[in-house]
Amino acid sequence: MYTLYSMQRSGNAYKVRLALAHLGAPYELVEVDILKGESRTPEFLTKNPNGQVPLLKVAPGRYLAESNAILWYVAGGTTLAPDDRIDRAEALQWMFFEQHSLEPNIGAAFFWLALIKGGRELQQHALEDWMESGFRALGVMENHIAKNRYFAAGRYTIADIALYAYTHVAHECDFDLTRFPAIRDWLARIEAEPGHVAMDWQAESLAVAE
Amino acid sequence: MYTLYSMQRSGNAYKVRLALAHLGAPYELVEVDILKGESRTPEFLTKNPNGQVPLLKVAPGRYLAESNAILWYVAGGTTLAPDDRIDRAEALQWMFFEQHSLEPNIGAAFFWLALIKGGRELQQHALEDWMESGFRALGVMENHIAKNRYFAAGRYTIADIALYAYTHVAHECDFDLTRFPAIRDWLARIEAEPGHVAMDWQAESLAVAE
Repeated sequence: MYTLYSMQRSGNAYKVRLALAHLGAPYELVEVDILKGESRTPEFLTKNPNGQVPLLKVAPGRYLAESNAILWYVAGGTTLAPDDRIDRAEALQWMFFEQHSLEPNIGAAFFWLALIKGGRELQQHALEDWMESGFRALGVMENHIAKNRYFAAGRYTIADIALYAYTHVAHECDFDLTRFPAIRDWLARIEAEPGHVAMDWQAESLAVAE
Repeated sequence: MYTLYSMQRSGNAYKVRLALAHLGAPYELVEVDILKGESRTPEFLTKNPNGQVPLLKVAPGRYLAESNAILWYVAGGTTLAPDDRIDRAEALQWMFFEQHSLEPNIGAAFFWLALIKGGRELQQHALEDWMESGFRALGVMENHIAKNRYFAAGRYTIADIALYAYTHVAHECDFDLTRFPAIRDWLARIEAEPGHVAMDWQAESLAVAE
């Protein structure tokens, strides 16, 4: 059985919970509160020197970091992970896009605007960039998903799971999805998939630890 | 034969050229000058709606974007791409790390400080963040590579290629690698690999197109 180090409000950790729920795979959940510095303790840093969640224990003393790498690991051999060479490459393409173009913008906006009390004021200088780059990423996604039911391989895969995590909370952090009808339809399709679980986060309940 | 849309000075495009050279795979190179807007023309956007290079033509009318996804595609079935489940996951871990923690900082600093005339003044407000996050990423890499010869699978893989692209020019954009002896040794090992080619870029020769 897997052990997943996770933070409930992290979209990156949610991806892994969503994939494991769809697959019906049992796992032990260890909640790590990064805002209380729990991912920066000496003990946690021996598990993940990058000090981040999610983190998956894959064998005694062996840990895997980076949400999208964990998705490939847990979904390996299932329909969620495309095996065909070009399908796999296209799923990877969207997953690298997610970490490079979507998560740094919508993920950052979600964290500071939706989760952190007073975060909007603290990050006012960065907000314009996040909004511009985030909307640009959503435009690229809309263009694809208007012509395809899923992001890769013509079926529900970990590419959808990776992109869903922050896109489905985009409206909670100033990203109005009215202009993106195909994305909204796709979000509804993902939510209708078997084993779907909600992210279950709470708004603005957190204060930044110094 | 592949067609690769590339920009000579792009570290992300260099990754693909480096992998193809190591593999001895012939390809047609199409130079795209993103600073002249050549990746934003209607014609190019039909190939890659995200408007970026590198881009690989994999079949008539079919294109693959995202440098690290392209690496998996071209290296598939070779020793550069780990096939074992955990080795593959660890290679992916480092490649997602590269796109999320290394490239946005060292890649951005390289672009603005080393390639663009007057870039330092234009990006002064962002530089402190890039340096702090970039040095943090280098610290995570040093910690790993001090104990391992390569980043994944115990051999030269596309994870090394992905990380090498911007790390080997880090010293050109204010990242002093003196504190990272294991990284410097690893850079030398990568440069000794068969088929190694240089990135071949020119310093500060470019002006920003408006």
